[in-house]
Amino acid sequence: MKYSYISHLYCPKCSNTFSHEQKNQLCTCGSPLLVEYDLELLGKELSKEALVGRVSSLWRYHELLPISDEKDVVTLGEGMTPLIKMPIMGEDMKIANLWMKDEGIIPTGTFKARGAAVGVSKAKELGVTELAMPTNGNAGAAWSLYAARGGIQSTIVMPIDAPKITRNESAISGSNLYLVDGLISDAGKIVAQSVADHGLFDASTLKEPYRIEGKKTMGLEIAEQMDWKLPDVILYPTGGGVGIIGIYKALTELKKLGWVEGELPRLVAVQAEGCAPIVKAWEEGKSESEFWHDSETVAFGINVPKALGDFLVLEAIYQTNGCAVAIEDEALLAEQKKLASLEGAFVCPEGAATFVAARRLREQGWIKEQDFVVALNTGMGIKYPDTISVEVPILQKGDTIRKSMKA
Amino acid sequence: MKYSYISHLYCPKCSNTFSHEQKNQLCTCGSPLLVEYDLELLGKELSKEALVGRVSSLWRYHELLPISDEKDVVTLGEGMTPLIKMPIMGEDMKIANLWMKDEGIIPTGTFKARGAAVGVSKAKELGVTELAMPTNGNAGAAWSLYAARGGIQSTIVMPIDAPKITRNESAISGSNLYLVDGLISDAGKIVAQSVADHGLFDASTLKEPYRIEGKKTMGLEIAEQMDWKLPDVILYPTGGGVGIIGIYKALTELKKLGWVEGELPRLVAVQAEGCAPIVKAWEEGKSESEFWHDSETVAFGINVPKALGDFLVLEAIYQTNGCAVAIEDEALLAEQKKLASLEGAFVCPEGAATFVAARRLREQGWIKEQDFVVALNTGMGIKYPDTISVEVPILQKGDTIRKSMKA
Repeated sequence: MKYSYISHLYCPKCSNTFSHEQKNQLCTCGSPLLVEYDLELLGKELSKEALVGRVSSLWRYHELLPISDEKDVVTLGEGMTPLIKMPIMGEDMKIANLWMKDEGIIPTGTFKARGAAVGVSKAKELGVTELAMPTNGNAGAAWSLYAARGGIQSTIVMPIDAPKITRNESAISGSNLYLVDGLISDAGKIVAQSVADHGLFDASTLKEPYRIEGKKTMGLEIAEQMDWKLPDVILYPTGGGVGIIGIYKALTELKKLGWVEGELPRLVAVQAEGCAPIVKAWEEGKSESEFWHDSETVAFGINVPKALGDFLVLEAIYQTNGCAVAIEDEALLAEQKKLASLEGAFVCPEGAATFVAARRLREQGWIKEQDFVVALNTGMGIKYPDTISVEVPILQKGDTIRKSMKA
Repeated sequence: MKYSYISHLYCPKCSNTFSHEQKNQLCTCGSPLLVEYDLELLGKELSKEALVGRVSSLWRYHELLPISDEKDVVTLGEGMTPLIKMPIMGEDMKIANLWMKDEGIIPTGTFKARGAAVGVSKAKELGVTELAMPTNGNAGAAWSLYAARGGIQSTIVMPIDAPKITRNESAISGSNLYLVDGLISDAGKIVAQSVADHGLFDASTLKEPYRIEGKKTMGLEIAEQMDWKLPDVILYPTGGGVGIIGIYKALTELKKLGWVEGELPRLVAVQAEGCAPIVKAWEEGKSESEFWHDSETVAFGINVPKALGDFLVLEAIYQTNGCAVAIEDEALLAEQKKLASLEGAFVCPEGAATFVAARRLREQGWIKEQDFVVALNTGMGIKYPDTISVEVPILQKGDTIRKSMKA
């Protein structure tokens, strides 16, 4: 038994292959690279039942992750996040089996920890000593902290409007943090120049092949947590799109292993109305998206005007008979409150958007009442304190509360 | 097999017993009540090996929890938080086996979720429709959200200086939230009056017997995660003290069940220099603490001038040959930075205090180099953004980063 069954890297556009034992970024054709595993051998040597009782983190799937040597693993215990039923919301929108995969319950409070854990681990294995990346905040926070744990220096550039808490996370880790008066695409240009000038390892979304492998584990966990039956629909808030690409990759690998059977879940890319390039491309039946000008949304994590992996996101949607939906800020903020007051779940705005999408797709009949539906919440609501306005009565010592508010 | 092996409630002061099938608050003698289980029967009917493969949350221990009927369980997937090694910090302070139990990786981002999940579940089982509590912020946030999920109305009173994020969590859940210009003790008086005036269920620390059962699961998890061997030392940030009481109760129950053997870990209560009533009582060999006047610390969660369960905390320390340590704010804030930059762990100030305590106890020889030491981090650093001061360079679009910061 090997720790990892990784075999090589390949280009999903031009089919070129590369070694996973050297630092690789994009393919020579400009496409992101993906990781291939020796699934035939793995299928012979490991059964899914062997996972029972393993560590309660994403490293329980180490054979399907790209780290060759366990000693290179950089972990803070990330993964195996809760998959919890949302019965009241489900009743409210007439979906009998509505579940939430809660990616807030993870180090740094967002799903970005998965990509950072696996990406940093592989970077460490490859001898990277300094990495750089643009971020909308949460990825930068996660990569800063995991890089610190892995002994790798990081340079992070984020928009000045990114959630302020993510600055703290990045700064306290000792990262070289910069703000840019612009969008993540502007941060990306600065990082690209810095990578070219100083020879840093480029950890930008999909510019290294391993972040997606971390995100993939969301799909592995959903399958295992459902006892290897698959849901009918998975809704995912889509910015850079690595999560949805990763889930699609995971489920495809599980099918090849024979660990799951039947149709793949219909994958739904949920975007914000103010930044919906994938939705537009899907509506037009295109295989790539166009840059979305003047993008704006309170769901900051999905403010990505043009994703490098857009063609992979669209492929995942087309191949699973999925769809793409854009949600207005007002609607997702209202849903965020509903989720907290009805289900006690304080999700991030991006996560709330997936529930609005589920509601609308149910109304349209695209989701059926008996469908098993999983909405992905990508992070904790507390990372975005400014989305909630709070007015609270202030008492003095010895004051009394006039009456029970039950009424 | 029963879902819970709860038998009754008892008073640790006067030995009076009470039914767990009725709403009970304090004993008639004024002491908190504790939960007793039929451990003899449980020991016959359940082996610790039967836990393997169970749900990755604190409900895997449902036989040792007080909820009689599974349908009353109110859960957001809390528990089974990571127990991770801290090798660089360990080397730094010459402790060969330094580990962190990270209670930030849980709904609402602090260990308070455990008490809220179990407390709210039992309140629901007992037919409570409205509860009230004072809080230093994090408990109120957790109880607000879990109460919402359980369909219970909540009234929460917190100091005006409590972490602002906890206001958001409480408010978005639909709780009746009040701020008080004072300390948690002032909030407590207001809640007590409100409980008396309006007949609400009093969910104050230790005024209901079930919160501690939730906290207890930290001890159960540490034992199981260490394959039923116990650490030599557990350090715990101590305010109300329910965590340390709960861990002591858990380990005692595990010994009675025969699931663990040998000496219990030495339990260390870590407090802030500006609010150290337990440390003072321990230093004076007393069995109860005195009210600490003009208390103040950045570690807001442990700003508790007089804990109702102080005698239980002190008992846990004395019975395990533990100790109590007070840490200055300056030292714990420095340790917080060290933890983030060396280990990638952005812990809360209370959690950082336990590492300072470990460092000092090691220097004094109280902790030996080969001891297996577990420091409890009770919450995420991001819940206290104001403890980090961040100054970040701001770039304009098209700017370049002058050089790699590697140097």
